[in-house]
Amino acid sequence: MAAVSLGAALAVSSGAIADDGLGDYRDRFEPLPHFPPIPADNSLTPEKVELGNMLFFEPRISSSGVISCATCHNPALGWSDRIPRATGHDGQIGDRNTPTVLNSGFLGSQFWDGREPDLEGQALGPIEADIEMAMDLDQALERLQEFDLYHEKFGEAYPGDEDPINKENLAKALASFQRTLNTPNSPFDRYLRGDMDALNQQEKDGMVAFVENGCIACHSGPALTDSNFWAIQVPGSTDVGRFDVTGDEADMYKFRTPTLRNVSVTYPYMNNGATETLEEAVAIMGTEMLGRDFDEATIADIAAFLHTLTGEMPDFEVPALP
Amino acid sequence: MAAVSLGAALAVSSGAIADDGLGDYRDRFEPLPHFPPIPADNSLTPEKVELGNMLFFEPRISSSGVISCATCHNPALGWSDRIPRATGHDGQIGDRNTPTVLNSGFLGSQFWDGREPDLEGQALGPIEADIEMAMDLDQALERLQEFDLYHEKFGEAYPGDEDPINKENLAKALASFQRTLNTPNSPFDRYLRGDMDALNQQEKDGMVAFVENGCIACHSGPALTDSNFWAIQVPGSTDVGRFDVTGDEADMYKFRTPTLRNVSVTYPYMNNGATETLEEAVAIMGTEMLGRDFDEATIADIAAFLHTLTGEMPDFEVPALP
Repeated sequence: MAAVSLGAALAVSSGAIADDGLGDYRDRFEPLPHFPPIPADNSLTPEKVELGNMLFFEPRISSSGVISCATCHNPALGWSDRIPRATGHDGQIGDRNTPTVLNSGFLGSQFWDGREPDLEGQALGPIEADIEMAMDLDQALERLQEFDLYHEKFGEAYPGDEDPINKENLAKALASFQRTLNTPNSPFDRYLRGDMDALNQQEKDGMVAFVENGCIACHSGPALTDSNFWAIQVPGSTDVGRFDVTGDEADMYKFRTPTLRNVSVTYPYMNNGATETLEEAVAIMGTEMLGRDFDEATIADIAAFLHTLTGEMPDFEVPALP
Repeated sequence: MAAVSLGAALAVSSGAIADDGLGDYRDRFEPLPHFPPIPADNSLTPEKVELGNMLFFEPRISSSGVISCATCHNPALGWSDRIPRATGHDGQIGDRNTPTVLNSGFLGSQFWDGREPDLEGQALGPIEADIEMAMDLDQALERLQEFDLYHEKFGEAYPGDEDPINKENLAKALASFQRTLNTPNSPFDRYLRGDMDALNQQEKDGMVAFVENGCIACHSGPALTDSNFWAIQVPGSTDVGRFDVTGDEADMYKFRTPTLRNVSVTYPYMNNGATETLEEAVAIMGTEMLGRDFDEATIADIAAFLHTLTGEMPDFEVPALP
């Protein structure tokens, strides 16, 4: 690792002078900020983040007592689970692949079908879902109320609140913690910021192919998603997607564009998780979304580019729960 | 915390002079060493520990793909699960309470019934057990063999081994990691080492009661267990214990004396996990094992003493798995 860091350091000084002539392509992208937008009604405080960190790892807000947010959004596995479809309460298998929580604060809506607008809206769903944590929310709150430490930590996070252990505050704390789980300074971010040698030639070729083939039409912005909904039926999927949310025929089979940040460590892919490799995923996107049959070299280049989107994993601590 | 540390530092200097006259009691105990005995055929190396750390958090050696050692031996919950009986594959509930892995290298045998002599023997059982990780061991090894990083890390941990990803090495790496999960420097250890103020008067009264009532007959040695087997049927339990291992009538209802290290953070108690509080546990031990009906003050004193057995939690990292 020392050798790599030294190489990167040297590269900055040489790269700062030479330009690789790809400025027009770079201009289509944005580096990932260290923090996403913070909503006016849920200011990001250290107390809420600490509490949210505890709650994220708290299995006793599941009915089995062993499933926490961190079970499926596992920090050891890119804050996701690396299985095709989420496995929850009593081993039940859901319909969709678990999205990573990394950089989820940058998304314009939450869940594959965008059924919640923000992380506050998202936070409580998996606790209650029968096939996830399968816990009644009131029971979850009662469970937390049994512990003096939660009274203390909720009190510190929501000062002046007479009865701070409530649904809204639970959601706000979880959302606050998740807004700290960002992965800045990927090789691609360093490249966008002027380190011309942070990407090798194949990775740059992949960036060019990503732009010229139109991937960037949907995968744009800091998280490489437009947060918009697009119809797609990947192999093996019968999932109607956003139609289930809106009941609008126009939303049939539509899913929110997923982020491509850390995509190489958040396999498998697609709403049904049936696609194992980045190369397969690129090929499927070519045929299904762009009507293009990418050749092997193009697939390899784009996959190489996608590997550069893995950033620095967030610092966090496994909390000592009461 | 700074104030507490300062207090402790001051206490050492005054405590070094004054003796509390309880030396005869202190002499019955041993402070916890930083490391347990290391077996001659499994030397403790940083490479094995790092690999064992990865494997401990690896859910893909379970058949569901979501259960790892760390699911039930959860670092957020005293490296145990804080539910009465272990909940594993497909939500199945086992017969016994999950023992903490903290300081498990100090135990003379493993599992409640002592059916394995050491951590190497213990390591593979829960991977295979139908109600725990429910994974065929050969399949688990095949799963690991899919990842270049595991080839690299097993190779580094077992240099010169031609086919290092095998059962024996899996067990040795897990055992090595677990031998680092120790909790030295509890208040009681500091007291035993001469800091007379590391325990308050009630905690010292509890130590005296612990000795005088005979708790120390079984709860002795650095981990406060004799690693011997004793017959007990706690309320609600029909578990025959070690009889299932030996088939010897004399072993009916016998269980290995559990460690009392970190007992206040490894609730609930007893082989069936039916006892929620330390106070209840002390009372049950009094009636069942010692034939004594402890009064409330004695129970409170012993419980206070038991709280002083919580040491410094081990440093570890959630690994980045491949």
